[in-house]
Amino acid sequence: MEAKDFDRWVDQSLLAFEATLDDLVPAGAPAGLGEAMRYASLGGGKRLRPLLVLASCAAVNGDRFAAMRAACAVELIHAYSLVHDDMPCMDNDVLRRGKPTTHVAFGEAQAMLAGDAMQALAFEVLTPDSGIAPALQARLCALLARSAGHDGMAGGQAIDLASIGRQLDECTLRDMHRRKTGVLLQASVVMGAACGDVSAGAAQSLSAYGAALGLAFQVVDDILDVTQDSVVLGKTAGKDQDANKPTYVSVLGLEPAKGLAQQLRAEAKAALVASGLADVSHLSLLADSVVERVN
Amino acid sequence: MEAKDFDRWVDQSLLAFEATLDDLVPAGAPAGLGEAMRYASLGGGKRLRPLLVLASCAAVNGDRFAAMRAACAVELIHAYSLVHDDMPCMDNDVLRRGKPTTHVAFGEAQAMLAGDAMQALAFEVLTPDSGIAPALQARLCALLARSAGHDGMAGGQAIDLASIGRQLDECTLRDMHRRKTGVLLQASVVMGAACGDVSAGAAQSLSAYGAALGLAFQVVDDILDVTQDSVVLGKTAGKDQDANKPTYVSVLGLEPAKGLAQQLRAEAKAALVASGLADVSHLSLLADSVVERVN
Repeated sequence: MEAKDFDRWVDQSLLAFEATLDDLVPAGAPAGLGEAMRYASLGGGKRLRPLLVLASCAAVNGDRFAAMRAACAVELIHAYSLVHDDMPCMDNDVLRRGKPTTHVAFGEAQAMLAGDAMQALAFEVLTPDSGIAPALQARLCALLARSAGHDGMAGGQAIDLASIGRQLDECTLRDMHRRKTGVLLQASVVMGAACGDVSAGAAQSLSAYGAALGLAFQVVDDILDVTQDSVVLGKTAGKDQDANKPTYVSVLGLEPAKGLAQQLRAEAKAALVASGLADVSHLSLLADSVVERVN
Repeated sequence: MEAKDFDRWVDQSLLAFEATLDDLVPAGAPAGLGEAMRYASLGGGKRLRPLLVLASCAAVNGDRFAAMRAACAVELIHAYSLVHDDMPCMDNDVLRRGKPTTHVAFGEAQAMLAGDAMQALAFEVLTPDSGIAPALQARLCALLARSAGHDGMAGGQAIDLASIGRQLDECTLRDMHRRKTGVLLQASVVMGAACGDVSAGAAQSLSAYGAALGLAFQVVDDILDVTQDSVVLGKTAGKDQDANKPTYVSVLGLEPAKGLAQQLRAEAKAALVASGLADVSHLSLLADSVVERVN
């Protein structure tokens, strides 16, 4: 596949995704809550997780309606986690996606509620009255709940919280990031694959692809945190360093961290080959975009 | 049914419920997260929502395993909402169920994460690998997500937040409480009923029972807030008054509020009769306990 075909697929996918998410996040939620939810979820972000869901679904020729709902659900979980993570009691950050963070724009209480409501909405969009088979609804809810909760994202954030000012070894750092970022990226791939019929072996390969890509994403994040400025990132640069948080760069050094990112990309691509699926080109190019991104 | 049979049913149900919840809330979640989740969810509270789920399931002779999971899920949503609601940016409360609130005991960041993880866990316990039919899993997730989110509990809290220091009419106050407290209590009844086979008419009657009971609960809460002290309540008494929040007592006056509670109990019981179900005695006595409670 040529790069411009991939770019076109990304553009078309994002157009459909943004329209669907815009439809699903309620403008009419009471007392400004809808406004805060929409501020936090619409019109920003790289939308990597939705693209992974949609590309994975395409690789298994799955149910596109279900995958689009899954893409919205995963992004809502990601977006809510950013809202809560930015709050004063956590990272106390004021800039996100080039805009004031949600609590700066709407106040802390509304930001917390908006995050809470976005998590509930994620499960709401996975369980429509019609359009997705009930068994698939249940499967998607199961995958999302496990990746968002204590054993996934929230658990990773708790480790992150406890690790400030401490030196971690690479193994502990890897576990933290696997939970904090990796599990939800991996779940995006697995949820997309769940929207189709796929052999257990192929599903396992896609899951391995997701795991490698998820880790690569975090390694690159840590690299960009020290090599880019805030304007390019759209969020505060150098904040991990300032907060004395352990990162791949602080644990491994900059060049070895870059080497690890390349190695993880190779692992991700090897898993795609191992899946035996014919059309994995979007997933392969998404791995490239994760490792080569500049923000 | 005699009162002592009901008491025995409550005791046995709560014993089984506490054991199940204890099993499901992970002690091993990383970096103190599990400890905070368990602190916030185990060993306290009236457990009204779980009892409603179990009584409703019994009324329709439903699947008891599914109902017990639903009972845990609903209570996890309720408990997480208390954790977030007590935080400094919301009600800033230090006492809950006779203990220091979760953020006082574990810090604000861990409390926020614990609440977030408890919401995810609610959907996790509804979607086990086996033991609940997938279609029922999906139905329970759908009901829970809608009652917890923008159109339910979180939406009600946003209205509550916006209403501080303002005078509301009874209609707006009723809408706020319907969302904030009523919808989740009603969902408890509806989720219990979903665990069995029940006619559309009976399901609708049970839902009406849940709506009346949910509102009665809040009216009584407002009455107790001005008539009881903190020791009896296990939480800070008079706090709504202090916060200048509109309540049924401030809007209607104390005696009319007591009259409304009685009227809602009668409505709830009339709905049980209308359901045509044979064994609604537990639900009927739960309505009594809601209106006659002293804390």
